Amino acid sequence: MNISLENIRNMDSRERGRLINSAIGFKPATLLGTVDEEKRTNLAIISSVFHLGANPALIGIIFRPDVTARHTLTNIRDTGFCTLNHVSKAIYKKAHQTSARYEKDQSEFDTCGLTQEYHHDFIAPFVQESPIQLALKLVEEKEITQNGTHMLIMSIEGIYMKDQYVSSDGNIDLDAADTICVGGLDSYYECSLIERLPYAKPDKSII
Amino acid sequence: MNISLENIRNMDSRERGRLINSAIGFKPATLLGTVDEEKRTNLAIISSVFHLGANPALIGIIFRPDVTARHTLTNIRDTGFCTLNHVSKAIYKKAHQTSARYEKDQSEFDTCGLTQEYHHDFIAPFVQESPIQLALKLVEEKEITQNGTHMLIMSIEGIYMKDQYVSSDGNIDLDAADTICVGGLDSYYECSLIERLPYAKPDKSII
Repeated sequence: MNISLENIRNMDSRERGRLINSAIGFKPATLLGTVDEEKRTNLAIISSVFHLGANPALIGIIFRPDVTARHTLTNIRDTGFCTLNHVSKAIYKKAHQTSARYEKDQSEFDTCGLTQEYHHDFIAPFVQESPIQLALKLVEEKEITQNGTHMLIMSIEGIYMKDQYVSSDGNIDLDAADTICVGGLDSYYECSLIERLPYAKPDKSII
Repeated sequence: MNISLENIRNMDSRERGRLINSAIGFKPATLLGTVDEEKRTNLAIISSVFHLGANPALIGIIFRPDVTARHTLTNIRDTGFCTLNHVSKAIYKKAHQTSARYEKDQSEFDTCGLTQEYHHDFIAPFVQESPIQLALKLVEEKEITQNGTHMLIMSIEGIYMKDQYVSSDGNIDLDAADTICVGGLDSYYECSLIERLPYAKPDKSII
């Protein structure tokens, strides 16, 4: 089938949201932990996280201020920090429930049954149940003028996980950590390694 | 274990690259098809694609001009268009091989054994073996000054796939399409649906 630009524009908004959100394929499933200026905690699931660079270690996160994770964005702006926690198969339902529109004085840690954890003096709460946890610091916010979304550039300040998730060459074994991924708005997928492939070279085909 | 900012900075660059690229979890595995001004084709695997918004339908792509997919970025700038093709389990090795540094006059379609396909009068080549294909148009390029990467904002102009991959509510069944995902730089994962969850509401917990 061919879905044209005209078809996309004329679609019911919910149908279009589901289609376009699933059109690029799988996305990371992560929980962002923050505090507001009164140290009240917040937790939100988000899939719009992407790699920006390894040196310095930077990631990007897209926010739609009026729609998703509105308290998270405010908290990151106010404090400069958040945590990023991988969603595992054991907690995907609790993680999804954080997307409900709870009031600002309700912590999703409490309403969704997840446990706060703190490392050193980092201000934002980690998710104890999460197998891989990152400490993130706000570097810059950019507005995407085409649709009013905001991109946060965040630096990775620390990574917390079990020793056995990291190979001797630095690669994280996401399979061992039981990290899952998300498709579209609401489909959760478990992943199993097919194969790690060697660095590709023109004169040495792996096909 | 705790990997500190100090540890990350002092790491061997390849180890750091593997660690940081796998730290956010799973990423989409996609092939970008382009042509240069002489209509010579190019194909490159990329995992730094993310959802920007459904209305208008926009996605973002991160490029590191000196390192990855250098011909792809030039071709998109010169022509304004590219295709995005899901990597399926059947073609992941060929898709990975496109990351080798072939010369500009070598088409990865030929060197990696994938088939060009054209839809209507869209200038860029699609990958015939890919289950889900998107036609993309360049909207804007932004430089990320912190590390010299470039973000392209692209609009989705059309989607091509089999009817059975789309649910009646608009969601794409990535499992049926056999789309895979990538972890880090070189680990390919197959995904199977755990569950689709309902829209989360504060007063109706799904936990």
